[in-house]
Amino acid sequence: MTTSPLALPFPAIPEIAGVTRRIARARYKTWDRCDLTLLTFDEGTGIAGVLTQSKCPSSEVDWCREHLAQGHARALVVSAGNANAFTGRRGRAAVEAVTAKVAEQLHCPIEQVFVSATGVIGVPLPIDKAEAGLDAAFSAAPCSWEEAASTIMTTDTFTKGAVATATVGGRTITLAGIIKGSGMIAPDMATMLGYIFTDAAIDPAFLQTMLSAANRQSFSCITVDSDTSTSDTVLAFATGKAGNAPLRSFDDVGADAFQAALADLCRQLALLVVRDGEGAQKLIEITVEGAVSDESAHRIALSIANSPLVKTAIAGEDANWGRVVMAVGKAGEPADRDRLAIRFGNTQVARDGLPVEGYNEAPVAAHLKGSEISIGVEIGLGTGRATVWTCDLTHGYISINADYRS
Amino acid sequence: MTTSPLALPFPAIPEIAGVTRRIARARYKTWDRCDLTLLTFDEGTGIAGVLTQSKCPSSEVDWCREHLAQGHARALVVSAGNANAFTGRRGRAAVEAVTAKVAEQLHCPIEQVFVSATGVIGVPLPIDKAEAGLDAAFSAAPCSWEEAASTIMTTDTFTKGAVATATVGGRTITLAGIIKGSGMIAPDMATMLGYIFTDAAIDPAFLQTMLSAANRQSFSCITVDSDTSTSDTVLAFATGKAGNAPLRSFDDVGADAFQAALADLCRQLALLVVRDGEGAQKLIEITVEGAVSDESAHRIALSIANSPLVKTAIAGEDANWGRVVMAVGKAGEPADRDRLAIRFGNTQVARDGLPVEGYNEAPVAAHLKGSEISIGVEIGLGTGRATVWTCDLTHGYISINADYRS
Repeated sequence: MTTSPLALPFPAIPEIAGVTRRIARARYKTWDRCDLTLLTFDEGTGIAGVLTQSKCPSSEVDWCREHLAQGHARALVVSAGNANAFTGRRGRAAVEAVTAKVAEQLHCPIEQVFVSATGVIGVPLPIDKAEAGLDAAFSAAPCSWEEAASTIMTTDTFTKGAVATATVGGRTITLAGIIKGSGMIAPDMATMLGYIFTDAAIDPAFLQTMLSAANRQSFSCITVDSDTSTSDTVLAFATGKAGNAPLRSFDDVGADAFQAALADLCRQLALLVVRDGEGAQKLIEITVEGAVSDESAHRIALSIANSPLVKTAIAGEDANWGRVVMAVGKAGEPADRDRLAIRFGNTQVARDGLPVEGYNEAPVAAHLKGSEISIGVEIGLGTGRATVWTCDLTHGYISINADYRS
Repeated sequence: MTTSPLALPFPAIPEIAGVTRRIARARYKTWDRCDLTLLTFDEGTGIAGVLTQSKCPSSEVDWCREHLAQGHARALVVSAGNANAFTGRRGRAAVEAVTAKVAEQLHCPIEQVFVSATGVIGVPLPIDKAEAGLDAAFSAAPCSWEEAASTIMTTDTFTKGAVATATVGGRTITLAGIIKGSGMIAPDMATMLGYIFTDAAIDPAFLQTMLSAANRQSFSCITVDSDTSTSDTVLAFATGKAGNAPLRSFDDVGADAFQAALADLCRQLALLVVRDGEGAQKLIEITVEGAVSDESAHRIALSIANSPLVKTAIAGEDANWGRVVMAVGKAGEPADRDRLAIRFGNTQVARDGLPVEGYNEAPVAAHLKGSEISIGVEIGLGTGRATVWTCDLTHGYISINADYRS
């Protein structure tokens, strides 16, 4: 698997007080790599999360959904190579075995242990391998952020992390994130496994409010292939070690700053997933303005971002704005063909429902040869606005996905 | 362009009294082939139609929508190579010029002239070429069904036609159909250009009722790439030359027989489009049963049929039913992970939300190596049922669509 041409280097991420990372080989597949990640948190760590909207979620997602509301976390276990999804009672039993073992080791309530799994669907997570992996992890030395980020990967071609800071009540707060995901990525939520860690002190309910808001502008705005995983999860952990007065609402000093940093971190992480979209050669940003509402703009933008014909046109470096019109038309949202305006890069190619006569094709061609493509659509009906991100659809996507299990 | 491996031979189609076919070179593109099809109908011919749900339809679709209700047709002009979509006032002007010229020639009301166009979006149909093409067509000798079907094609790799018969009031009624389409195919209507001709006498309003019903079980049940064209059109013409007592409702003798033949014809035509799906190597039939309603089953089936991960798995001959579960889950329809059952061909591979232990993989592998794949999903919640058809997603699709305009 060659590294995505859109890859970014792993950033320098400082330690987050109260977070300890360990990795081990559970050997969920016949591979020679670590595939079990164990993160432990000091007492008093709060948690929030957003989970897949799939009607057939994995047992891990069920578990997280059941236990998020109590708001506290002592551990997170991530298994790579086996999604433990569609595995019925045996999948649930594996989750219970893993969480019980960790809770016993940490002397904490079982509901403070969170779990994720990613990989092949339909094969129950082997409990013996998970338990042996946990034993190895608990006795391992702590590892780096990059090693942890690398251990949660499956078909990813590069290791993904991000960092952001904010000043809250005079103290510098750090936010760190790691994420994995490259296929089976679509909005309606998190669409991959992402984990966010901060030393800020935040009431869990308010952390949930802020995470949900950040999600709507980041993870819910990306799509690689329109397919929504059964396991998508984003969890945020706040250790409170920074010593700030706990944030409880947007009335608190520093809450806006933290929200901005969280949004920035989520957007960084989300775009890393698109940059590793299976077979991706180009990152595509689609902005829709002038729709009847922000929600309408979001749906139109996703209709464009999920169109195979638009995505293959970009792969072919073809300014085929006709396919953009098609995708606007099929979105089912209010649109008036004769008011549409479309740009590629900074060049307007259509306006008032007509091609712009004699527009300069040279800057459009140059823009399309680049690796970061921008498409703008003006609907001309209102003030609704949205931006989403996707990647092009290439032979690489077919090669990866027509030969996944073999 | 090599012929689809799923192609079927063009059938022997008898003449339909009252229908005359002619073709000509309008040279909408720099190609050496006929690209203008002119069908004329004797007086008294009724018409019905179903049109794209796109919010940005072509001028041709607008025209047809405006004039279907009056119920009578004397001519149909189909332009291939230029879709005349997103061409604003100039597109409308081209439609008015074409229909005026034909109406003048036939001494008929302009609203009895119907038009379609297919090809590149965003370039106004050149009126001079259309008029010269019409002149050539009117002076040409009548042509065969196969020549007409060939002239409406664009990226199609084989010529598509079908025939059906029914007995109505003691008389044998013939139905003939031609169709084009291979990409930009998705449901929510006709999704391509299809034309149906019959010598039956049918009240136009009742023909519309029967066509809409047939459409729901055929053209609305196919998808190649989830992309809905701005130009999708299915028109049905009934010349009345068979001499049956005109059908006006399902109470009339023979109406049920005609509906059955029409449904059969529509399904034949719809499947021909999937068989020519861009890059298609396999025809996939997806049946969903046990959903809470037929509509819910239809939406789940389309979620599976439009999933790039399911379609690439079939391309790879991989019985990856986990991806089927994923697609059920993302449909947003009621489903219970632990009641799902899934089959490939005749082999049950999952039941009660779990893999069927020790199921025989040999017949599944053999089935997936074939060119006609059957996937069955039992939701386990009700009696809703639907069948849809799609094709696999291959390197051929990428090759065709990443290099369309160049």
